[in-house]
Amino acid sequence: MKILRTIGEAQKLTTSLRKKNKTIGFVPTMGYLHEGHLSLVKAARKKADVVIVSIYVNPLQFGPKEDLSKYPRDFKRDELLCRKAEVDYIFYPDDKQMYPDKFSTYVTVENITSILEGRIRPEHFKGVTTIVLKLFNIVQPHFSVFGQKDAQQVAVIKKMNADLNVNTKIIVSPTVREADGLAMSSRNVYLTKEQRADAPYLQKSLQYAKRKILLEGYNKDIEFLEGQMSKLIKSRKTATKIDYISFNDYYTLEEIKSLKNSNNSAILISLAVRFGKVRLIDNIVIKR
Amino acid sequence: MKILRTIGEAQKLTTSLRKKNKTIGFVPTMGYLHEGHLSLVKAARKKADVVIVSIYVNPLQFGPKEDLSKYPRDFKRDELLCRKAEVDYIFYPDDKQMYPDKFSTYVTVENITSILEGRIRPEHFKGVTTIVLKLFNIVQPHFSVFGQKDAQQVAVIKKMNADLNVNTKIIVSPTVREADGLAMSSRNVYLTKEQRADAPYLQKSLQYAKRKILLEGYNKDIEFLEGQMSKLIKSRKTATKIDYISFNDYYTLEEIKSLKNSNNSAILISLAVRFGKVRLIDNIVIKR
Repeated sequence: MKILRTIGEAQKLTTSLRKKNKTIGFVPTMGYLHEGHLSLVKAARKKADVVIVSIYVNPLQFGPKEDLSKYPRDFKRDELLCRKAEVDYIFYPDDKQMYPDKFSTYVTVENITSILEGRIRPEHFKGVTTIVLKLFNIVQPHFSVFGQKDAQQVAVIKKMNADLNVNTKIIVSPTVREADGLAMSSRNVYLTKEQRADAPYLQKSLQYAKRKILLEGYNKDIEFLEGQMSKLIKSRKTATKIDYISFNDYYTLEEIKSLKNSNNSAILISLAVRFGKVRLIDNIVIKR
Repeated sequence: MKILRTIGEAQKLTTSLRKKNKTIGFVPTMGYLHEGHLSLVKAARKKADVVIVSIYVNPLQFGPKEDLSKYPRDFKRDELLCRKAEVDYIFYPDDKQMYPDKFSTYVTVENITSILEGRIRPEHFKGVTTIVLKLFNIVQPHFSVFGQKDAQQVAVIKKMNADLNVNTKIIVSPTVREADGLAMSSRNVYLTKEQRADAPYLQKSLQYAKRKILLEGYNKDIEFLEGQMSKLIKSRKTATKIDYISFNDYYTLEEIKSLKNSNNSAILISLAVRFGKVRLIDNIVIKR
């Protein structure tokens, strides 16, 4: 495994790999890797000749009130985990290279970035799409693997790729969970013992809704389901605020107001809940 | 020469060309080709194994008051000219493919797009950068050739490529002029005989300023030079309005307020003048 620290050497390598007809699989991360990331690497490893993981905490996707400097980092540990997972290259650039002085170009996807996470974090997806396009141009991957956990991120990046004709396939890998159902996240380390015990109720409430729909049919009232999910989450003392519970089309993120009249081929139920200062998200997909 | 009408076939072709290590040279145009475009093709032909010209009138770069439907088009003639110029492929897509329903992703370069042309045409460069990035992703060129005549466009695209790490080299080709100095432009066909006779005064005024600086030194007052240029242009009856005369750094487009204290390696003097409804631009570069 080799570590690429400059854009120049990374782009030179990937250009030469492409000339040699090597399939490049790419997993962009912000580091502090957990089982979730490693499952993405595994998915890439299965299909690619060369697996490249980027580790870069992207300042552009943090809001002014979100603490970039406190985002957990541990490169030595990440390096070890990548080596074990048979990653071929880590792309590990610094801020000066990624956002040099007078950087002023941005990629924005409109509409679907102003709902759900985008409503709470207004500039977040602009930061995501800009860095992801940069990374795609540097790594030149044939495909990139993203986690289902960030379902809106997946939809936004797919939309960017379709609109801008980016020649990189997006592969979505299932959310990896702790034994009790809590979705893996770098943010979980911030949870107190009590919050950690309550956090699995996000997934429990999502599963409740899915079960209700599958067992009792698509004539279930969304307001009723949201109410029941909300009750279930609020029954946990450390769940201080529900930012949203939302039913959307999995592909277009169009809001679903009634299940009865919907003909969405896949329904995404997603939510965001705060446990004090820690904000967790989760989702579930129902395929018809 | 082959005509590619779909994004799919174009992208498939260029992916396979890249695998075969063929150098792709690209000339993006809005059609209605003239000697200026053909000089860009010639420059591409010299260096590339495969030359691709795109012909697409990009609606996104037209303002609400600019008449997209009246933009001159003549594909049969363009095809003939491309064949003569030994173009290998014309990429000729339609609007439905380039901007499908619910298209919502844009590339914006900030700051340098809000001056000069951008001040008069506020959404113009957003349209340019979005289409150019799309075309780069479709055509996957090793290099692209742009005309010096649109100097700000060149600076904006270079900035986009640098910021987004686009792996396409930008080559700038000199402006091609009529015998009397008028820069070639698709818009020249709109000029009346009288306006056509006056139009070369754009270049005349630019040459005046360049000569003054080269002969009399960099201590020339910019306000004085602009005043003299303005006088020269206004001496022509059909020149109804000067939108701007501006001195900028050729690479960064930073405004130069005084030549005395400047250490710019190349100075761009540019202007835009209206002849009734026809708006012409031109520029000159002084390398130190």
